[in-house]
Amino acid sequence: MKHLLLSSLLLTGLVSAQKSQDSVQFKAIAEHILVHGESYNDLKELTKGIGHRLSGSSAYEKAVVWGEKKLRQAGADKVYLQPVMVPVWVRGKESLKIRTNGGHWEEIKMLSLGNSEGTQGKDLKAELIMVSSEKEFQMLPADKVRGKFVFFNFPWGHHHVEPFKAYGEAGKYRRSAASWAAAKGGVGVVIRSLSSAFDDEPHTGSLRYEEELKKVPAVAIGNESADRLARLLEKQKLEVLLNSEATNKGEQLSYNVIGEITGHKDSKVIVAAGHLDSWDVGEGAHDDGSGVVQSIEVLRTFKELGIKNNHTIRVILYANEENGVRGGYAYLDAVKKSKEPHLFAIESDSGGFTPRGIAMDMEEEKIRQITSWEDLFRPYGIHDFQRRHSGVDIGPLKSLGIPLSGLFPDPQRYFDIHHTHEDTLEKVNRRELLLGASAMTQLIYMIDKYW
Amino acid sequence: MKHLLLSSLLLTGLVSAQKSQDSVQFKAIAEHILVHGESYNDLKELTKGIGHRLSGSSAYEKAVVWGEKKLRQAGADKVYLQPVMVPVWVRGKESLKIRTNGGHWEEIKMLSLGNSEGTQGKDLKAELIMVSSEKEFQMLPADKVRGKFVFFNFPWGHHHVEPFKAYGEAGKYRRSAASWAAAKGGVGVVIRSLSSAFDDEPHTGSLRYEEELKKVPAVAIGNESADRLARLLEKQKLEVLLNSEATNKGEQLSYNVIGEITGHKDSKVIVAAGHLDSWDVGEGAHDDGSGVVQSIEVLRTFKELGIKNNHTIRVILYANEENGVRGGYAYLDAVKKSKEPHLFAIESDSGGFTPRGIAMDMEEEKIRQITSWEDLFRPYGIHDFQRRHSGVDIGPLKSLGIPLSGLFPDPQRYFDIHHTHEDTLEKVNRRELLLGASAMTQLIYMIDKYW
Repeated sequence: MKHLLLSSLLLTGLVSAQKSQDSVQFKAIAEHILVHGESYNDLKELTKGIGHRLSGSSAYEKAVVWGEKKLRQAGADKVYLQPVMVPVWVRGKESLKIRTNGGHWEEIKMLSLGNSEGTQGKDLKAELIMVSSEKEFQMLPADKVRGKFVFFNFPWGHHHVEPFKAYGEAGKYRRSAASWAAAKGGVGVVIRSLSSAFDDEPHTGSLRYEEELKKVPAVAIGNESADRLARLLEKQKLEVLLNSEATNKGEQLSYNVIGEITGHKDSKVIVAAGHLDSWDVGEGAHDDGSGVVQSIEVLRTFKELGIKNNHTIRVILYANEENGVRGGYAYLDAVKKSKEPHLFAIESDSGGFTPRGIAMDMEEEKIRQITSWEDLFRPYGIHDFQRRHSGVDIGPLKSLGIPLSGLFPDPQRYFDIHHTHEDTLEKVNRRELLLGASAMTQLIYMIDKYW
Repeated sequence: MKHLLLSSLLLTGLVSAQKSQDSVQFKAIAEHILVHGESYNDLKELTKGIGHRLSGSSAYEKAVVWGEKKLRQAGADKVYLQPVMVPVWVRGKESLKIRTNGGHWEEIKMLSLGNSEGTQGKDLKAELIMVSSEKEFQMLPADKVRGKFVFFNFPWGHHHVEPFKAYGEAGKYRRSAASWAAAKGGVGVVIRSLSSAFDDEPHTGSLRYEEELKKVPAVAIGNESADRLARLLEKQKLEVLLNSEATNKGEQLSYNVIGEITGHKDSKVIVAAGHLDSWDVGEGAHDDGSGVVQSIEVLRTFKELGIKNNHTIRVILYANEENGVRGGYAYLDAVKKSKEPHLFAIESDSGGFTPRGIAMDMEEEKIRQITSWEDLFRPYGIHDFQRRHSGVDIGPLKSLGIPLSGLFPDPQRYFDIHHTHEDTLEKVNRRELLLGASAMTQLIYMIDKYW
């Protein structure tokens, strides 16, 4: 009995001493990053020096070189490129015009959806019909759709406290509406952007054509234009004129950029990731320059603070998240071949905003363990520990049973600027970005120590 | 025993039914405000229609008229003005120049601190000496200070996760350095702005002159200029040339704007507050247009959702928070006279950012009770329930033992723009602002129901 009591006291003392040691390390990490963190400067280089960087573009290749250099400078023991075949989609010139009753053509601000085929630079003119939902569209007989442009005017769910729910609801219109329309003989699609903003910015993003259906062009318009078209269409007919050079040009060789600090013998791999590609508008600052520079910061912080890692900490800057996820699958294939054991992967791809929580996609017991660290994270504003989607690039690793996680930052501003010309460095706050890097580093410190 | 068990079961059932009812009401409040809330439009009127509005300015008087109108439109049963004598401080023209070794004068971006006396529009030229802390200054003999300008180069505490801690540390330099310098015969003061930004924006804010000491001019410069002056002063002497028309012009009659929905007979008063005045630069959008429009939103939401209030819900738009807190004291005096019992007061004056918590300044038992509502608040991102400072305007009510509270929004961006030209509508996000109004309304709903 005495023995048990003593052991129990010792254990309690040990746990409490460890907690206190971890809390000191958490503070050291946060303060180091807030004062000496390079994430914001790195993001400036990536956004202002290179700019947007769609897979298959020369800008993406510049970003690869930049990423290699940054990982070396951050102190990686090993930096290498992982070959990935990526699709090459090119926007080219594009314009969308409308007219009522044979009046004059008026230009509408627009962006072709990613992967969309255009009109080979020719004018495509058709009547525009409007539906507000998939259900409404599916109830239309094909002869009401044949030869028409279809305007999918699905409203953004402003009532959701979590904007990712609104994004989830509206996602299928961007991804699938082109093929729905094609199946009924429609010639093209206009969608209300997946946007929480009260402005006229169109938001691009990828669509997927169904095999064996015609690849009709699909474009997004901003909320103000969508409101206007809806008002006009209530009273009269509208014609649209689309001219777009958008086209898919096959594939080309590209790369994931990987840098790591090596663990001890028999160690496993911990992945910290973001995606290096972006859409071909704006600067890809929140999506996902932020995740890239935060992941590099994790590695740099381990080196600069001299934290001894047990496991290999591997930073992956993925290629082609936006229009193919080829980078994610290439890494999966590599792991399948190498059979390297993986302990954990975390991705930051929800913007460089103040971190609020940790998204977890793993077995319940591991979720409970990470959640039990909440007291350590609370002083840093991290309080939301939930089972959620982790990240698109690391997603394929789920098939290997690897515990997946995502940085969950404050989501309120993301869908104002996501996939637009407005996703620029100016929309990223230095402290918010750095605190996200700090949260990732703190979590990886814990995983490395206790798993 | 059976009886007891039954009562206990009934009680548990009752508590759980109430929790569920409250959770439904929380959702209704949040969704109503996210979809129909007027805060952002109201803030646009206040910032773009009126602009900055220092106490004693004609813009402030316009804001009073606007506030009355808005409260009536929001559905207040009663709207009235509460007289307050406010100081009239006028900035006028101002410029700060430096030169090295009798070279040419070079202009530095600056703002006089609020309440500072200037140079009556005359040139005041003196050598500039630098100290990095109060301690370093107090160790200087008076003959090193006499006739000099003193540059208080106290660095911002970037390492703090909570920027309010850095603000707290640096506050005394803005408030008191002018009188410290005057006590040793200094002729003026330049301070490094209380700023978390990596830019050159000067941040104004109030100083307090000590009685019986000379009122020497005090100005703030941005971080970039402060860095530069520090570098220059390490190598050589610097002269400064200040010309400022800043001056205090006595007092004038102004007003707190008050609107309320009346409670039942024998009810008490619940206060929701912000301050209507701002500094005389920028637009006072976060500080504190946000608190103003959020407080009005509380009242509007009770009316629009038809929530029956037990107690009087009183919105107070305070005068003169920035350079005197006269509005806060005028309201205290009025309550002392009227002896109206007050149940609770909450202020929003930390910016219109995503709400994260509730600051509480009240007895432990009440803090525990509010904290026990955390489960209701968590789906709205509100997780930080702590004893903290509530708000400057409601602060005087503490002397009457009234439980005080403050909305605690995400603090990371606030001190980038606080008291600067950059505190504009563009820096406020619509959803973040509305969620703050929602949190205030939810809390007041609970207080009104259970206290």
